[in-house]
Amino acid sequence: MTGQDYTMKEAMLYSQRIAQLSKALWKAVEKDWQAWIKPYDLNINEHHILWISYHLEGATISDVAKFGVMHVSTAFNFSKKLEERGLLAFSKRDTDKRNTYVDVTPEGKTLLEEMYENYHDTPHSVIDGSLPMKDLYGKFPEFLDVMAVIRNIYGDDFMEIFERSIKNIDNTFKQTE
Amino acid sequence: MTGQDYTMKEAMLYSQRIAQLSKALWKAVEKDWQAWIKPYDLNINEHHILWISYHLEGATISDVAKFGVMHVSTAFNFSKKLEERGLLAFSKRDTDKRNTYVDVTPEGKTLLEEMYENYHDTPHSVIDGSLPMKDLYGKFPEFLDVMAVIRNIYGDDFMEIFERSIKNIDNTFKQTE
Repeated sequence: MTGQDYTMKEAMLYSQRIAQLSKALWKAVEKDWQAWIKPYDLNINEHHILWISYHLEGATISDVAKFGVMHVSTAFNFSKKLEERGLLAFSKRDTDKRNTYVDVTPEGKTLLEEMYENYHDTPHSVIDGSLPMKDLYGKFPEFLDVMAVIRNIYGDDFMEIFERSIKNIDNTFKQTE
Repeated sequence: MTGQDYTMKEAMLYSQRIAQLSKALWKAVEKDWQAWIKPYDLNINEHHILWISYHLEGATISDVAKFGVMHVSTAFNFSKKLEERGLLAFSKRDTDKRNTYVDVTPEGKTLLEEMYENYHDTPHSVIDGSLPMKDLYGKFPEFLDVMAVIRNIYGDDFMEIFERSIKNIDNTFKQTE
């Protein structure tokens, strides 16, 4: 058995481990997310598109697809449904005729803000499951290793948009306080 | 603004952060997983059921559903398809008539082992994205904070099965070396 073989095996064990962990984590997140958005007649893709458009302030459909980790056709089709409901507006720019831009309408903004206000009306197993770590360390875990892996897979701009969106939610709450 | 309000906001920001991260990680894992199993005409649920049945050695359908984080009906329906393909065998036990047990058939075992042998024939973005951390720290990241959160959500037995399955893959490779 060579060193390279060992590395291959180690890599496979690692990868199988991450597959299990990330599935379990995502399924818990998905369940919490679905419970939260259920009263608003949105599916996860639709809500995610609204969420991204709100925080990016002037995103293209391909930005939405990239940051939402969905196919461009999925992003387009669900954006269309949100437009029909008056929650999202499509536009073209004179300086950039090729891309379609999406913006959250005032109705969409009101809906998103209402959803944030009611965030804690539904159970969040991920928050509950993280509270013992918060008690132990004084703050919620940061998942720095997950962030590093995601940065390597999706690129710096993905992380930049990610950080901007989280900061944006933070600022929204500061303004309304 | 009270301390409790601050905690609620902090919890929400944390939870939105995890939602994004876990979706991005899971989508990368899913893509790698699909590319790996594509030549074998299996979907992720089917492969996951085979995987769990193989490593648990005598699992019930509800064990499969629990550990695979899928509905019992999903676990049952895809197990049925695997049985029709001769990859999985159903059985009842005299000591436990209520549960249906699933076991990987010799054909199923051969298929799984062949799949492990060809693991590195397809790209694994999660492995590639983790190699810089392996270079830096001398080993792949362990995601201990993710594991702690999952343990709190899914329970100790989930983690016990998880560790057993990873150890099992490790042993399988030791035997064949």
